[in-house]
Amino acid sequence: MKNRAIFTISICFAAALSLLVSGGSAAPESYFPYVGEKGSIMLPSGYRANWVHMGSWAVAEKEAPGYGFHDVYAQQSTVEGYRKTGQFPDGAVLVKEIRKVRTEEMTTGKTSYADEITTWFVMIKDRQGRYKDNPNWGNGWGWGLFEPDDTGKNLSTDHAKDCIGCHIPAKSTDWVYVRGYPTLK
Amino acid sequence: MKNRAIFTISICFAAALSLLVSGGSAAPESYFPYVGEKGSIMLPSGYRANWVHMGSWAVAEKEAPGYGFHDVYAQQSTVEGYRKTGQFPDGAVLVKEIRKVRTEEMTTGKTSYADEITTWFVMIKDRQGRYKDNPNWGNGWGWGLFEPDDTGKNLSTDHAKDCIGCHIPAKSTDWVYVRGYPTLK
Repeated sequence: MKNRAIFTISICFAAALSLLVSGGSAAPESYFPYVGEKGSIMLPSGYRANWVHMGSWAVAEKEAPGYGFHDVYAQQSTVEGYRKTGQFPDGAVLVKEIRKVRTEEMTTGKTSYADEITTWFVMIKDRQGRYKDNPNWGNGWGWGLFEPDDTGKNLSTDHAKDCIGCHIPAKSTDWVYVRGYPTLK
Repeated sequence: MKNRAIFTISICFAAALSLLVSGGSAAPESYFPYVGEKGSIMLPSGYRANWVHMGSWAVAEKEAPGYGFHDVYAQQSTVEGYRKTGQFPDGAVLVKEIRKVRTEEMTTGKTSYADEITTWFVMIKDRQGRYKDNPNWGNGWGWGLFEPDDTGKNLSTDHAKDCIGCHIPAKSTDWVYVRGYPTLK
């Protein structure tokens, strides 16, 4: 009887701690390592070798704001969730890696391929409005922008100013360019 | 004692069967489902959701033989093996998917992304010269070419005629364009 009581208290304590840490509602496992207490966003690592590739994009004009090779990665659970429901599951983490474009003349024609990284964009799905006081959260997502000089710092300070502009053409698909992600189909 | 004898015979039988099926030497687990008895090559499926993405390429000129968006996938064991040794392990399977390029004017600039599939290329690493009588095997690899109309048929009949030409710029890196595969680094 005593053991059962201790067990029950432990479970309640763990649940309460989890709520405190996540700022009110339990953090989905998929994003737990990448979101801090007040909604700060960390850049995931290891996604190339362990996550699923969703699609590739290229913006060839050097003057364009999106210049470079874009590759987008997500966890397997995100892809499975989207394939089932047609929506990104709560806690989905999307990492878009942008690399310089290198071009060579080859026997196959003038060929461009991805070179060194210039930028990462991170989007984290939030269906519960967890971080209302943090301007990097809004429109159903948390938004992150990282550069190689300091991968520990989210350079976005306000998603409405720093992120949304480039996502307007994808507003109708929950701000994500799913038409270029064959893995979701 | 009798049980042990039956066990030993079973193991020997299984080993002999494996040798027969693979044409002389045991087939690596990584390619077993994709190579038939005489070296016929099958197109893997499920690589987008389950394998690792190695890199992206784009050939923008419509007249070029390599026209399209190229994305290359391999199993996780291949990436781990290459990172350790700098070489593709015996049995490595590479799938290159080629898709049409779709281009749109967006707020990020003129943007190109991968559309429907036109071709798959498959390469399977063979360090033992297993299929000497099959002209789709040579230069250390098995070579496959597939199109959406009949994904069950390898359209390459002789790798020296149908495949090697486009790989000459990558001869020094075991015929693979590793310089465009950031995941291997």
